[in-house]
Amino acid sequence: MNFADKLIQAVKIKGNPICVGLDPRLEQIPAQIISKANEGEKNTKEAAAEALKAFNKGIIDAVADLVPCVKPQIAFYEQYGWAGFKVYEETCAYAQEKGLLVIADAKRNDIGSTAKGYAGAFLGKVPLFGGEVAGLDADALTVNAYLGWDGVKPFAQVCRDEDKGIFILVKTSNISSGDLQDQELLVGKDKMQVYELMAHFVDSWGADLIGESGYSSIGAVVGATYPQQAKVLRKMMPHAIFLVPGYGAQGGEAEDVKPCFNEDGLGAIVNSSRGIIFAYENDEKYGPENYADAARDAVVRMKEDLRF
Amino acid sequence: MNFADKLIQAVKIKGNPICVGLDPRLEQIPAQIISKANEGEKNTKEAAAEALKAFNKGIIDAVADLVPCVKPQIAFYEQYGWAGFKVYEETCAYAQEKGLLVIADAKRNDIGSTAKGYAGAFLGKVPLFGGEVAGLDADALTVNAYLGWDGVKPFAQVCRDEDKGIFILVKTSNISSGDLQDQELLVGKDKMQVYELMAHFVDSWGADLIGESGYSSIGAVVGATYPQQAKVLRKMMPHAIFLVPGYGAQGGEAEDVKPCFNEDGLGAIVNSSRGIIFAYENDEKYGPENYADAARDAVVRMKEDLRF
Repeated sequence: MNFADKLIQAVKIKGNPICVGLDPRLEQIPAQIISKANEGEKNTKEAAAEALKAFNKGIIDAVADLVPCVKPQIAFYEQYGWAGFKVYEETCAYAQEKGLLVIADAKRNDIGSTAKGYAGAFLGKVPLFGGEVAGLDADALTVNAYLGWDGVKPFAQVCRDEDKGIFILVKTSNISSGDLQDQELLVGKDKMQVYELMAHFVDSWGADLIGESGYSSIGAVVGATYPQQAKVLRKMMPHAIFLVPGYGAQGGEAEDVKPCFNEDGLGAIVNSSRGIIFAYENDEKYGPENYADAARDAVVRMKEDLRF
Repeated sequence: MNFADKLIQAVKIKGNPICVGLDPRLEQIPAQIISKANEGEKNTKEAAAEALKAFNKGIIDAVADLVPCVKPQIAFYEQYGWAGFKVYEETCAYAQEKGLLVIADAKRNDIGSTAKGYAGAFLGKVPLFGGEVAGLDADALTVNAYLGWDGVKPFAQVCRDEDKGIFILVKTSNISSGDLQDQELLVGKDKMQVYELMAHFVDSWGADLIGESGYSSIGAVVGATYPQQAKVLRKMMPHAIFLVPGYGAQGGEAEDVKPCFNEDGLGAIVNSSRGIIFAYENDEKYGPENYADAARDAVVRMKEDLRF
């Protein structure tokens, strides 16, 4: 079963399109986890990484039966060097053990020969003394396609070979996304925005990776903060699954993510990070010791909110 | 002294603008290093990472007195998971100990709050139990600016605070770089290519980070494979240092990199990876045991080649 079919199936089984963003910020991790991970006040990066790991496990345990997927953002782990990278690997593996699909949010990009390295590192196999071994083995990866097709091709190849997926940045959720993405292009006689050209690429590059669900393993990142653009993009990429950041803490609401879905009620997964994993900070009902319950309840509320 | 001044000074002292790309491919590492790193044929990722480290040390020792900087490409390390990431950190630190400036080639990019995480991870400080500690602490980082200014701003901030640098992808060296980068934009009444708009951004974003050398700590990646475009870009970004990939193995020649330099003979560093670090494969004069000598001689030849 290809990645798109696996993701659509998981969305149907769980009955919602929620992706939990695992973006652990050390400053916001509950004190009981910090004091245990940093026993003896070693104040090392390894201790910080341990705290991220324990925190993530609590979140994953609390939401695994509810949602189809998680999206750990690697910057929050790379901060702590190799120890953080190790916890990134462990977080991905733990989430998969619990039945979740894992979207590695790393926005990797490079020329072909190097992109091949990233593709192996995150989704495929890596060379090992004449043989091969699995890399980090996430289910999908976010990719920045500023370099064009030959920088995307190695990822597309591993999608095919290993039933993995990628989500290409099309229209991102941040305020400055328009600096480049909203600029107007002259393509032949047509005028289109840069994000529309990128959408055209996604549609074209993903055409031969469409599964039985009708969706392709090459998806698109489309921010919840730009509903008008999402409406246009939905039509331009009928087979792409949208990975939608920007709901919740970044300001996107249920009404804003609606245009990201197709008429079949599918075709998008909606990410929330801070709004779920640090939900305990926003409601006095929960103390830090109940951060996982708070996250679970936040998912339940988000599920209700998205029932349109 | 800001990053640009440090780099220009190093180029003047070493008398050449060469950047050695540390892109170690396990399959091409000499047998004596492989057999030592993989003693007992454990065939683990840790053993692979050990081989990369030993190989890199040999290269760094051989070229440290000759060149101003090195550029380790992180994909080749991330392949081996946390062990690879650890060797990436160790490689950067070792090169700095030997007096080299280190450009982390990781092409990171994200929305502001996440970009801040990457900026700390690679160039600045990261939060640690109420305090702060240095991250990987490279001298500069490559950045992909598809997300616009708010995704670049945290990197610019750390450039200012910590005397670090970034190189933003403008016109990359790969064959498909034109898919997006060569498209024609209508900006107001002006027509310009996407890479020209990016050049405008680089010039503008870097304007308040210009050092005494006249160069800015915000530089640009401009491929040696596109000399015509480089000529235009050189005029558009007079204060930017160009990081020029694509010389050597990718096909760029000395004549092609000329347009990347200003009339002062400065303003660009030229990267070569495979052509230097695996030079031993291209000349029977060297055996695998003399890979470091071969790399040193390749640098000397490149230095001659670039003396225009």
